[in-house]
Amino acid sequence: MTTPVDIAVVGATGAVGETLVQILEELSFPVATLHLLASMESAGSSVMFAGKKLKVREVDSFDFKQVKLVFFAASPAVSRSFAPKAQQAGCTVIDLSGVLDGAVALVPEANAERIADLSQPALITSPCAGAVALAVALAPLKGLLDIERVQVNACLAVSAQGREAVSELARQTAELLNARPLEPRFFDRQVAFNLLPQVGASDEQGHTAVERRLVSELRQLLGLPQLKISVSCIQVPVFFGDSFSVAVQSRRPVDLGAVNTALEAAESIELVEPGDYPTPVGDAVGQDVVYVGRVRHGIDEDEQLNLWLTTDNVRKGAALNAVQVAQLLIKHMA
Amino acid sequence: MTTPVDIAVVGATGAVGETLVQILEELSFPVATLHLLASMESAGSSVMFAGKKLKVREVDSFDFKQVKLVFFAASPAVSRSFAPKAQQAGCTVIDLSGVLDGAVALVPEANAERIADLSQPALITSPCAGAVALAVALAPLKGLLDIERVQVNACLAVSAQGREAVSELARQTAELLNARPLEPRFFDRQVAFNLLPQVGASDEQGHTAVERRLVSELRQLLGLPQLKISVSCIQVPVFFGDSFSVAVQSRRPVDLGAVNTALEAAESIELVEPGDYPTPVGDAVGQDVVYVGRVRHGIDEDEQLNLWLTTDNVRKGAALNAVQVAQLLIKHMA
Repeated sequence: MTTPVDIAVVGATGAVGETLVQILEELSFPVATLHLLASMESAGSSVMFAGKKLKVREVDSFDFKQVKLVFFAASPAVSRSFAPKAQQAGCTVIDLSGVLDGAVALVPEANAERIADLSQPALITSPCAGAVALAVALAPLKGLLDIERVQVNACLAVSAQGREAVSELARQTAELLNARPLEPRFFDRQVAFNLLPQVGASDEQGHTAVERRLVSELRQLLGLPQLKISVSCIQVPVFFGDSFSVAVQSRRPVDLGAVNTALEAAESIELVEPGDYPTPVGDAVGQDVVYVGRVRHGIDEDEQLNLWLTTDNVRKGAALNAVQVAQLLIKHMA
Repeated sequence: MTTPVDIAVVGATGAVGETLVQILEELSFPVATLHLLASMESAGSSVMFAGKKLKVREVDSFDFKQVKLVFFAASPAVSRSFAPKAQQAGCTVIDLSGVLDGAVALVPEANAERIADLSQPALITSPCAGAVALAVALAPLKGLLDIERVQVNACLAVSAQGREAVSELARQTAELLNARPLEPRFFDRQVAFNLLPQVGASDEQGHTAVERRLVSELRQLLGLPQLKISVSCIQVPVFFGDSFSVAVQSRRPVDLGAVNTALEAAESIELVEPGDYPTPVGDAVGQDVVYVGRVRHGIDEDEQLNLWLTTDNVRKGAALNAVQVAQLLIKHMA
């Protein structure tokens, strides 16, 4: 089925939604009609697609029977309200919010085989950037390691929280450099030249929703539902590009040569030589791969593998993965 | 012995040295004569102490027989050259560079008891900020946990690399905000709005000197020479305040109530309530304690304790600890 598909993108005016539309065009995705949707406040604007200006319409009044495939790139609340309607209308749903019960997390490089046993119409989660990056990096290593635990420190760019957060970091930085008093708006405190060690509210156990999401999606993607994963998400004063400092504990010594060979051969990975290292701004931003560097054992501990990952959180970590999942679906249904 | 002591500070014009002199005054340290020393380039300037302007002299021509106690707050090279001379002259040496063989790492809150078996004159290391912060936080928990492994992600402020690094972050940020082309100088690439996952050169095993220093000092401070400690140091675009995301693996379930009680009762710790969290800029900078927050179990893993620490890397992480060690020595010798 390379027959063009009727598609809707919900949240088309957001950073991820706009990038998603752009990637559909870049990858020459077989689109018949593209419907761009958003909440009332954002509807009415236009987005360019394939040389045409497409009007963004209100999601509330959209008849999902007009399309076969819907991307949800809006807020969790929008996914919760409208994804069930899209499903009832027979649409395949690819949701980027991660809040839909029963959705299957998919990253083609990690668990493409899951596509064979999806119910129809399929309900799919395109995972958070951390789960995408970690799945891309760890899937090719699964056979080489006997993984006991994965420890992740996620340094999240402000763009993960949308355009307002990006403006806020720029505004705070400018005010501080001009020695003007800082009045935090989007964030509840100074984020410029600072680190916020908690992204979103914490639950009774002290974990945040983004931390729990990363753990549950990564377990699914690696096909290891019992895997011990520990994660701390930190808001860093970086505009674009999420980074992950990872320690994988294996039950046997890690063969670094084999790890490097596997990473070099893997899809969607750019391995950076020892001595050098990849950074979000210098390498990841605007790219379609996960950069991997600082591949090494733990200090005095050959059973541990340390890695540094960095990836464009809006592209590879969100929009691109969602489109790659859609490509896989189409290929499978062909 | 509250008899005043003749003291020398080597590196008195650097960020840490200057703060050290200031803290000697703040804590009314019993100083007889204070000699301020620096390398040729920095000698000649003046530093205020106890209402007087003290001239900074060249370390090369200093006769260490004039003093009993020397702080080394300069580069590793300066410590290597001059600490042996100070020792030969009979001085107690408190070195902040961490490069002297046979030096004993001391953090009064963690291993004050080690002071009893120091050889005379004593050769002491005031550890790196990470080892200080982790020792302050973990020493009171040692009895509560059966620690198997400590996993640390250290987010280091640029000030750890001196004043030039501080100016460079400010300069890069201003150039980027003004859309001028960025020419990295002190750092080899963009550090503003970016993360550099390697601080200093890496050795053949892929580790850096700061990472190895943290591990070896923390093992000493906790009195656990075999402890598995894994560490990744990341250069973050923060001026002052080092932060540490820590996961402690215990061999038995961690009693969070007991952990919180111990942290609240501990010296030099400010425990931040769940829901809130401490940040380098908002809390740590200018303060004499280690802030601890996000105290929680691992996700689905009660044998793991997660913590976030942040502290002023120049004060508590360096200058203040060195002076507190000196206070302890004087008390012990009294």
